[in-house]
Amino acid sequence: MSPDPILDTDFIKEMSRQMRALDTYGTYAGKSTTEVLAPFVLTKERKADIPLVGDPDEETVARVKAFYNAIAVLIEKECKLLAVPLVHLTHEGFGRALITVGKLVTVDKTLRDVHRFGFASLSKMKDEADKLLAVAIERIGQHSAVAGM
Amino acid sequence: MSPDPILDTDFIKEMSRQMRALDTYGTYAGKSTTEVLAPFVLTKERKADIPLVGDPDEETVARVKAFYNAIAVLIEKECKLLAVPLVHLTHEGFGRALITVGKLVTVDKTLRDVHRFGFASLSKMKDEADKLLAVAIERIGQHSAVAGM
Repeated sequence: MSPDPILDTDFIKEMSRQMRALDTYGTYAGKSTTEVLAPFVLTKERKADIPLVGDPDEETVARVKAFYNAIAVLIEKECKLLAVPLVHLTHEGFGRALITVGKLVTVDKTLRDVHRFGFASLSKMKDEADKLLAVAIERIGQHSAVAGM
Repeated sequence: MSPDPILDTDFIKEMSRQMRALDTYGTYAGKSTTEVLAPFVLTKERKADIPLVGDPDEETVARVKAFYNAIAVLIEKECKLLAVPLVHLTHEGFGRALITVGKLVTVDKTLRDVHRFGFASLSKMKDEADKLLAVAIERIGQHSAVAGM
């Protein structure tokens, strides 16, 4: 079986880099990208096992941050301007994720139920990232004066 | 002695409102604005008593938030657009304070040594708030399309 072409995309490669950067104890050494990113994939069955209400653990919060960090890196690559991610969460898993470029908010997402953060597949995760990235790049193009501040 | 005219300014009145809103146990009941805002005033002597390195306690973090909340309220009053404050701090007291209006970052402040957050006097605190407010209002005027998004 040939490897999934999605593993060769900039986004998935950056996600893998982000996760490996967090891996202080080398538990990901020798693991494939699919294995490293497996915790992001919440199939219907896995999601059903997570209680509706709950506090996100440290690993989940780290995954949310990795996701927005990766998008910020892709924004930077595309527009050659510094993109700063900011994930702000309460203990209960509610909050806001922002990515600012200059004085422009390029991504602004309300976060809910972060303890259930995940995607039906890696491909769905990439779709979501592509959507956020497209909006961000378009906004930077339209408001380059603010993005350049 | 006649009361300090600064106590009649919108900013100081809003600061007092913000602090009283946090006062779950009624400890501020019957206290004057000067008393309620006293923790914000760090004279040289009081500042010297605080160690250079330290973690901010909950009360200090609440005061930082009250300060940026008050500025957000004044921005809203001035420009009739929703202003959303976001104070993001690490446990060590480093972080970032943002106030967004639409997709425009109107206030963007790097926070350091938050455990030493305070001002030489109420008047100095108002000066700082006025400065941030003036920059924010000017920016909203210049980039009203982004602020209106």
